[in-house]
Amino acid sequence: MINFCSSCGGKVHVAVPPMDNRPRHICNDCGQVHYQNPKVIVGTLPVFDDKVLLCQRAIEPRLGFWTLPAGFLENHETAFDGAKRETQEEAGAEFSESQLYRIYDIPRISQIYVMYLAKLSSAHVNPGEESLAAHLFDESEIPWDSLAFPIMNDILKDFFTDRQQGCFTVAEKVL
Amino acid sequence: MINFCSSCGGKVHVAVPPMDNRPRHICNDCGQVHYQNPKVIVGTLPVFDDKVLLCQRAIEPRLGFWTLPAGFLENHETAFDGAKRETQEEAGAEFSESQLYRIYDIPRISQIYVMYLAKLSSAHVNPGEESLAAHLFDESEIPWDSLAFPIMNDILKDFFTDRQQGCFTVAEKVL
Repeated sequence: MINFCSSCGGKVHVAVPPMDNRPRHICNDCGQVHYQNPKVIVGTLPVFDDKVLLCQRAIEPRLGFWTLPAGFLENHETAFDGAKRETQEEAGAEFSESQLYRIYDIPRISQIYVMYLAKLSSAHVNPGEESLAAHLFDESEIPWDSLAFPIMNDILKDFFTDRQQGCFTVAEKVL
Repeated sequence: MINFCSSCGGKVHVAVPPMDNRPRHICNDCGQVHYQNPKVIVGTLPVFDDKVLLCQRAIEPRLGFWTLPAGFLENHETAFDGAKRETQEEAGAEFSESQLYRIYDIPRISQIYVMYLAKLSSAHVNPGEESLAAHLFDESEIPWDSLAFPIMNDILKDFFTDRQQGCFTVAEKVL
Protein backbone atom coordinates (compact mmCIF):
# COMPACT_ATOMS: atom_id res chain seq x y z
CA MET A 1 0.00 0.00 0.00
CA ILE A 2 1.38 3.39 -0.98
CA ASN A 3 0.56 6.03 1.63
CA PHE A 4 3.68 8.20 1.45
CA CYS A 5 6.08 9.40 -1.23
CA SER A 6 9.24 7.26 -1.14
CA SER A 7 11.20 10.23 -2.48
CA CYS A 8 10.25 13.15 -0.18
CA GLY A 9 8.05 11.49 2.50
CA GLY A 10 4.98 13.58 1.60
CA LYS A 11 1.46 12.14 1.66
CA VAL A 12 0.09 10.84 -1.64
CA HIS A 13 -3.31 11.10 -3.29
CA VAL A 14 -4.79 8.97 -6.07
CA ALA A 15 -5.59 10.67 -9.39
CA VAL A 16 -5.14 10.21 -13.14
CA PRO A 17 -2.00 12.16 -14.20
CA PRO A 18 -1.98 14.25 -17.39
CA MET A 19 -1.38 12.12 -20.57
CA ASP A 20 -2.43 9.02 -18.59
CA ASN A 21 -5.68 7.10 -18.30
CA ARG A 22 -5.32 5.27 -15.01
CA PRO A 23 -5.39 6.36 -11.36
CA ARG A 24 -1.88 6.53 -9.84
CA HIS A 25 -0.43 7.47 -6.48
CA ILE A 26 0.85 11.07 -6.77
CA CYS A 27 2.81 12.93 -4.09
CA ASN A 28 0.95 15.98 -2.67
CA ASP A 29 4.26 17.75 -2.04
CA CYS A 30 6.73 16.98 -4.87
CA GLY A 31 4.25 15.69 -7.50
CA GLN A 32 6.11 12.44 -8.17
CA VAL A 33 3.94 9.71 -9.70
CA HIS A 34 4.47 6.30 -8.09
CA TYR A 35 3.71 3.63 -10.68
CA GLN A 36 3.11 0.01 -9.69
CA ASN A 37 3.97 -2.62 -12.29
CA PRO A 38 4.00 -6.40 -12.66
CA LYS A 39 6.94 -8.39 -11.37
CA VAL A 40 9.02 -10.88 -13.35
CA ILE A 41 9.75 -14.32 -11.91
CA VAL A 42 12.47 -16.38 -13.53
CA GLY A 43 13.26 -20.05 -13.10
CA THR A 44 14.15 -23.38 -14.61
CA LEU A 45 12.74 -26.82 -15.21
CA PRO A 46 15.99 -28.71 -14.50
CA VAL A 47 16.33 -32.15 -16.03
CA PHE A 48 18.88 -34.89 -15.43
CA ASP A 49 18.51 -38.03 -17.54
CA ASP A 50 14.78 -38.76 -17.32
CA LYS A 51 14.30 -36.99 -13.98
CA VAL A 52 13.12 -33.52 -13.02
CA LEU A 53 14.52 -31.49 -10.12
CA LEU A 54 12.08 -30.07 -7.60
CA CYS A 55 12.74 -28.13 -4.39
CA GLN A 56 10.70 -28.35 -1.20
CA ARG A 57 9.99 -24.82 0.03
CA ALA A 58 11.46 -23.85 3.41
CA ILE A 59 9.65 -20.50 3.37
CA GLU A 60 6.13 -19.15 3.15
CA PRO A 61 4.07 -19.00 1.04
CA ARG A 62 3.49 -22.75 0.56
CA LEU A 63 6.10 -23.95 3.03
CA GLY A 64 6.67 -27.69 2.62
CA PHE A 65 5.27 -27.78 -0.93
CA TRP A 66 7.38 -28.63 -3.99
CA THR A 67 8.42 -26.14 -6.65
CA LEU A 68 10.74 -25.67 -9.58
CA PRO A 69 13.61 -23.30 -8.75
CA ALA A 70 12.31 -19.79 -9.44
CA GLY A 71 12.28 -16.33 -7.92
CA PHE A 72 12.01 -12.61 -8.56
CA LEU A 73 14.25 -11.18 -11.26
CA GLU A 74 16.65 -8.60 -9.79
CA ASN A 75 17.50 -5.20 -11.22
CA HIS A 76 20.41 -5.26 -13.71
CA GLU A 77 20.03 -8.99 -14.33
CA THR A 78 18.98 -10.84 -17.49
CA ALA A 79 16.12 -13.34 -17.21
CA PHE A 80 18.55 -16.16 -18.00
CA ASP A 81 21.09 -15.06 -15.37
CA GLY A 82 18.28 -14.78 -12.83
CA ALA A 83 17.03 -18.27 -13.64
CA LYS A 84 20.55 -19.66 -13.29
CA ARG A 85 21.01 -17.85 -9.97
CA GLU A 86 17.74 -19.18 -8.57
CA THR A 87 18.68 -22.73 -9.61
CA GLN A 88 21.99 -22.40 -7.81
CA GLU A 89 20.52 -20.69 -4.73
CA GLU A 90 17.54 -22.99 -4.21
CA ALA A 91 18.94 -26.32 -5.38
CA GLY A 92 22.72 -25.90 -5.58
CA ALA A 93 22.40 -27.25 -9.12
CA GLU A 94 24.42 -26.31 -12.20
CA PHE A 95 23.39 -26.73 -15.80
CA SER A 96 25.26 -26.82 -19.08
CA GLU A 97 22.52 -26.43 -21.69
CA SER A 98 19.27 -24.52 -21.57
CA GLN A 99 16.54 -23.01 -23.72
CA LEU A 100 13.68 -20.58 -23.23
CA TYR A 101 10.56 -22.72 -22.75
CA ARG A 102 7.51 -20.98 -21.27
CA ILE A 103 6.25 -17.47 -20.57
CA TYR A 104 3.35 -17.43 -18.11
CA ASP A 105 1.15 -14.40 -17.61
CA ILE A 106 -0.63 -14.41 -14.26
CA PRO A 107 -2.54 -11.10 -14.41
CA ARG A 108 -4.55 -11.80 -11.25
CA ILE A 109 -1.37 -11.38 -9.18
CA SER A 110 0.50 -9.15 -11.70
CA GLN A 111 3.31 -11.64 -12.31
CA ILE A 112 5.08 -12.87 -15.43
CA TYR A 113 7.13 -16.06 -15.27
CA VAL A 114 10.02 -16.63 -17.70
CA MET A 115 10.95 -20.32 -17.49
CA TYR A 116 13.86 -22.19 -19.09
CA LEU A 117 14.41 -25.88 -19.73
CA ALA A 118 17.82 -26.71 -18.27
CA LYS A 119 19.95 -29.84 -18.67
CA LEU A 120 21.79 -30.44 -15.39
CA SER A 121 25.52 -31.16 -15.55
CA SER A 122 25.22 -33.78 -12.82
CA ALA A 123 22.78 -35.25 -10.32
CA HIS A 124 24.50 -33.31 -7.55
CA VAL A 125 22.14 -31.06 -5.59
CA ASN A 126 22.66 -28.95 -2.49
CA PRO A 127 19.48 -27.29 -1.23
CA GLY A 128 19.91 -23.65 -0.16
CA GLU A 129 18.37 -21.98 2.88
CA GLU A 130 15.06 -21.39 1.06
CA SER A 131 14.68 -25.16 0.43
CA LEU A 132 14.06 -28.01 2.87
CA ALA A 133 15.14 -30.50 0.18
CA ALA A 134 15.98 -30.79 -3.49
CA HIS A 135 15.22 -34.05 -5.24
CA LEU A 136 15.21 -35.58 -8.73
CA PHE A 137 11.82 -37.11 -9.57
CA ASP A 138 10.76 -39.61 -12.23
CA GLU A 139 7.53 -38.67 -14.02
CA SER A 140 5.72 -41.33 -11.96
CA GLU A 141 7.02 -39.86 -8.69
CA ILE A 142 6.03 -36.18 -9.21
CA PRO A 143 4.08 -35.03 -6.11
CA TRP A 144 1.25 -33.50 -8.19
CA ASP A 145 -0.93 -32.74 -5.16
CA SER A 146 1.92 -31.14 -3.23
CA LEU A 147 3.17 -28.68 -5.85
CA ALA A 148 3.46 -25.13 -4.55
CA PHE A 149 1.78 -23.15 -7.34
CA PRO A 150 -0.56 -23.93 -10.29
CA ILE A 151 2.13 -22.84 -12.76
CA MET A 152 4.27 -25.77 -11.60
CA ASN A 153 1.54 -28.29 -12.41
CA ASP A 154 1.00 -26.71 -15.81
CA ILE A 155 4.62 -26.53 -16.93
CA LEU A 156 5.42 -30.04 -15.71
CA LYS A 157 2.40 -31.48 -17.57
CA ASP A 158 3.50 -29.61 -20.72
CA PHE A 159 7.06 -30.88 -20.31
CA PHE A 160 6.07 -34.55 -20.06
CA THR A 161 3.75 -34.18 -23.09
CA ASP A 162 6.45 -32.38 -25.10
CA ARG A 163 9.03 -34.99 -24.09
CA GLN A 164 6.84 -37.77 -25.48
CA GLN A 165 6.60 -35.83 -28.75
CA GLY A 166 10.30 -34.94 -28.73
CA CYS A 167 9.66 -31.24 -29.37
CA PHE A 168 10.09 -28.36 -26.90
CA THR A 169 8.87 -25.18 -28.58
CA VAL A 170 8.54 -21.85 -26.78
CA ALA A 171 4.99 -20.94 -25.79
CA GLU A 172 3.24 -18.19 -23.85
CA LYS A 173 0.29 -19.06 -21.62
CA VAL A 174 -2.12 -17.16 -19.39
CA LEU A 175 -2.99 -18.69 -16.01
CA MET B 1 15.42 7.06 -5.09
CA ILE B 2 13.92 5.51 -1.98
CA ASN B 3 14.34 7.78 1.06
CA PHE B 4 11.11 7.07 2.92
CA CYS B 5 8.85 4.09 3.57
CA SER B 6 5.84 4.28 1.22
CA SER B 7 3.81 2.40 3.80
CA CYS B 8 4.39 4.31 7.09
CA GLY B 9 6.47 7.33 5.98
CA GLY B 10 9.47 6.37 8.17
CA LYS B 11 13.05 6.86 7.02
CA VAL B 12 14.75 3.89 5.39
CA HIS B 13 18.24 2.44 5.67
CA VAL B 14 20.07 0.10 3.30
CA ALA B 15 21.00 -3.37 4.58
CA VAL B 16 20.90 -7.03 3.57
CA PRO B 17 17.72 -8.56 5.09
CA PRO B 18 17.79 -12.03 6.72
CA MET B 19 17.58 -14.88 4.12
CA ASP B 20 18.68 -12.43 1.42
CA ASN B 21 22.04 -11.63 -0.19
CA ARG B 22 21.52 -8.12 -1.57
CA PRO B 23 21.24 -4.70 0.03
CA ARG B 24 17.63 -3.47 0.13
CA HIS B 25 15.87 -0.38 1.43
CA ILE B 26 14.38 -1.26 4.84
CA CYS B 27 12.10 0.98 6.91
CA ASN B 28 13.62 2.08 10.23
CA ASP B 29 10.17 2.21 11.83
CA CYS B 30 7.99 -0.63 10.48
CA GLY B 31 10.73 -2.86 9.03
CA GLN B 32 9.14 -3.20 5.59
CA VAL B 33 11.62 -4.17 2.86
CA HIS B 34 11.18 -2.12 -0.33
CA TYR B 35 12.31 -4.24 -3.28
CA GLN B 36 13.08 -2.71 -6.66
CA ASN B 37 12.59 -4.94 -9.68
CA PRO B 38 12.85 -4.77 -13.48
CA LYS B 39 9.95 -3.40 -15.47
CA VAL B 40 8.21 -5.14 -18.37
CA ILE B 41 7.61 -3.26 -21.62
CA VAL B 42 5.16 -4.74 -24.11
CA GLY B 43 4.60 -3.84 -27.71
CA THR B 44 4.06 -4.92 -31.29
CA LEU B 45 5.73 -4.90 -34.65
CA PRO B 46 2.58 -4.14 -36.68
CA VAL B 47 2.60 -5.18 -40.33
CA PHE B 48 0.21 -4.35 -43.14
CA ASP B 49 0.96 -5.95 -46.53
CA ASP B 50 4.71 -5.36 -46.92
CA LYS B 51 4.81 -2.28 -44.66
CA VAL B 52 5.65 -1.78 -40.99
CA LEU B 53 3.89 0.69 -38.69
CA LEU B 54 6.03 3.15 -36.74
CA CYS B 55 4.99 5.99 -34.44
CA GLN B 56 6.79 9.30 -34.05
CA ARG B 57 7.15 10.05 -30.34
CA ALA B 58 5.36 13.14 -29.02
CA ILE B 59 6.93 12.73 -25.57
CA GLU B 60 10.37 12.56 -24.01
CA PRO B 61 12.58 10.61 -23.99
CA ARG B 62 13.44 10.70 -27.70
CA LEU B 63 10.71 13.15 -28.74
CA GLY B 64 10.45 13.24 -32.55
CA PHE B 65 12.12 9.85 -33.02
CA TRP B 66 10.32 6.82 -34.45
CA THR B 67 9.32 3.75 -32.44
CA LEU B 68 7.21 0.63 -32.57
CA PRO B 69 4.14 0.92 -30.34
CA ALA B 70 5.25 -0.21 -26.88
CA GLY B 71 4.92 0.79 -23.25
CA PHE B 72 4.98 -0.35 -19.64
CA LEU B 73 2.87 -3.38 -18.79
CA GLU B 74 0.20 -2.46 -16.24
CA ASN B 75 -0.77 -4.44 -13.14
CA HIS B 76 -3.46 -7.08 -13.77
CA GLU B 77 -2.79 -7.11 -17.51
CA THR B 78 -1.38 -9.89 -19.70
CA ALA B 79 1.61 -9.06 -21.91
CA PHE B 80 -0.54 -9.59 -24.99
CA ASP B 81 -3.36 -7.33 -23.73
CA GLY B 82 -0.80 -4.66 -22.89
CA ALA B 83 0.77 -4.88 -26.35
CA LYS B 84 -2.66 -4.58 -27.94
CA ARG B 85 -3.52 -1.58 -25.72
CA GLU B 86 -0.27 0.22 -26.59
CA THR B 87 -0.87 -0.37 -30.31
CA GLN B 88 -4.32 1.15 -29.99
CA GLU B 89 -3.23 4.04 -27.76
CA GLU B 90 -0.15 5.08 -29.71
CA ALA B 91 -1.22 4.32 -33.29
CA GLY B 92 -4.98 3.80 -33.18
CA ALA B 93 -4.29 0.53 -34.98
CA GLU B 94 -6.14 -2.77 -34.66
CA PHE B 95 -4.80 -6.20 -35.51
CA SER B 96 -6.40 -9.54 -36.21
CA GLU B 97 -3.50 -12.00 -35.97
CA SER B 98 -0.40 -11.96 -33.80
CA GLN B 99 2.37 -14.12 -32.40
CA LEU B 100 5.02 -13.78 -29.71
CA TYR B 101 8.23 -12.80 -31.52
CA ARG B 102 11.01 -11.40 -29.34
CA ILE B 103 11.98 -11.12 -25.68
CA TYR B 104 14.67 -8.49 -25.07
CA ASP B 105 16.63 -8.29 -21.82
CA ILE B 106 18.13 -4.86 -21.24
CA PRO B 107 19.79 -5.35 -17.83
CA ARG B 108 21.60 -1.99 -17.93
CA ILE B 109 18.27 -0.24 -17.46
CA SER B 110 16.45 -3.16 -15.79
CA GLN B 111 13.87 -3.62 -18.52
CA ILE B 112 12.44 -6.64 -20.31
CA TYR B 113 10.59 -6.15 -23.61
CA VAL B 114 7.96 -8.66 -24.74
CA MET B 115 7.25 -7.97 -28.42
CA TYR B 116 4.62 -9.48 -30.72
CA LEU B 117 4.37 -9.61 -34.50
CA ALA B 118 0.92 -8.27 -35.39
CA LYS B 119 -0.94 -8.36 -38.70
CA LEU B 120 -3.00 -5.16 -38.98
CA SER B 121 -6.63 -5.47 -40.01
CA SER B 122 -6.37 -2.35 -42.19
CA ALA B 123 -4.03 0.48 -43.10
CA HIS B 124 -6.09 2.83 -40.92
CA VAL B 125 -4.04 4.59 -38.23
CA ASN B 126 -4.97 7.32 -35.78
CA PRO B 127 -2.00 8.53 -33.70
CA GLY B 128 -2.79 9.02 -29.99
CA GLU B 129 -1.60 11.86 -27.79
CA GLU B 130 1.80 10.21 -27.21
CA SER B 131 2.49 10.17 -30.99
CA LEU B 132 3.10 13.04 -33.42
CA ALA B 133 2.41 10.69 -36.32
CA ALA B 134 1.87 7.03 -37.19
CA HIS B 135 3.00 5.83 -40.60
CA LEU B 136 3.38 2.62 -42.59
CA PHE B 137 6.93 2.25 -43.95
CA ASP B 138 8.36 0.06 -46.69
CA GLU B 139 11.65 -1.63 -45.78
CA SER B 140 13.48 0.91 -47.98
CA GLU B 141 11.83 3.83 -46.14
CA ILE B 142 12.60 2.85 -42.52
CA PRO B 143 14.22 5.87 -40.79
CA TRP B 144 17.09 3.79 -39.36
CA ASP B 145 18.97 6.82 -38.00
CA SER B 146 15.87 8.29 -36.39
CA LEU B 147 14.65 5.27 -34.43
CA ALA B 148 14.04 6.02 -30.77
CA PHE B 149 15.78 3.07 -29.07
CA PRO B 150 18.39 0.43 -30.06
CA ILE B 151 15.84 -2.35 -29.55
CA MET B 152 13.81 -0.91 -32.44
CA ASN B 153 16.77 -1.15 -34.83
CA ASP B 154 17.45 -4.70 -33.71
CA ILE B 155 13.94 -6.09 -33.98
CA LEU B 156 13.29 -4.41 -37.34
CA LYS B 157 16.54 -5.84 -38.76
CA ASP B 158 15.55 -9.29 -37.46
CA PHE B 159 12.08 -8.95 -38.94
CA PHE B 160 13.30 -8.10 -42.44
CA THR B 161 15.81 -10.98 -42.32
CA ASP B 162 13.16 -13.40 -41.04
CA ARG B 163 10.70 -12.20 -43.68
CA GLN B 164 13.17 -13.02 -46.44
CA GLN B 165 13.55 -16.51 -44.98
CA GLY B 166 9.81 -16.87 -44.39
CA CYS B 167 10.22 -18.00 -40.78
CA PHE B 168 9.40 -16.02 -37.62
CA THR B 169 10.53 -18.06 -34.63
CA VAL B 170 10.50 -16.75 -31.06
CA ALA B 171 13.89 -15.66 -29.73
CA GLU B 172 15.28 -14.05 -26.60
CA LYS B 173 18.09 -11.51 -26.92
CA VAL B 174 20.20 -9.42 -24.56
CA LEU B 175 20.88 -5.80 -25.50
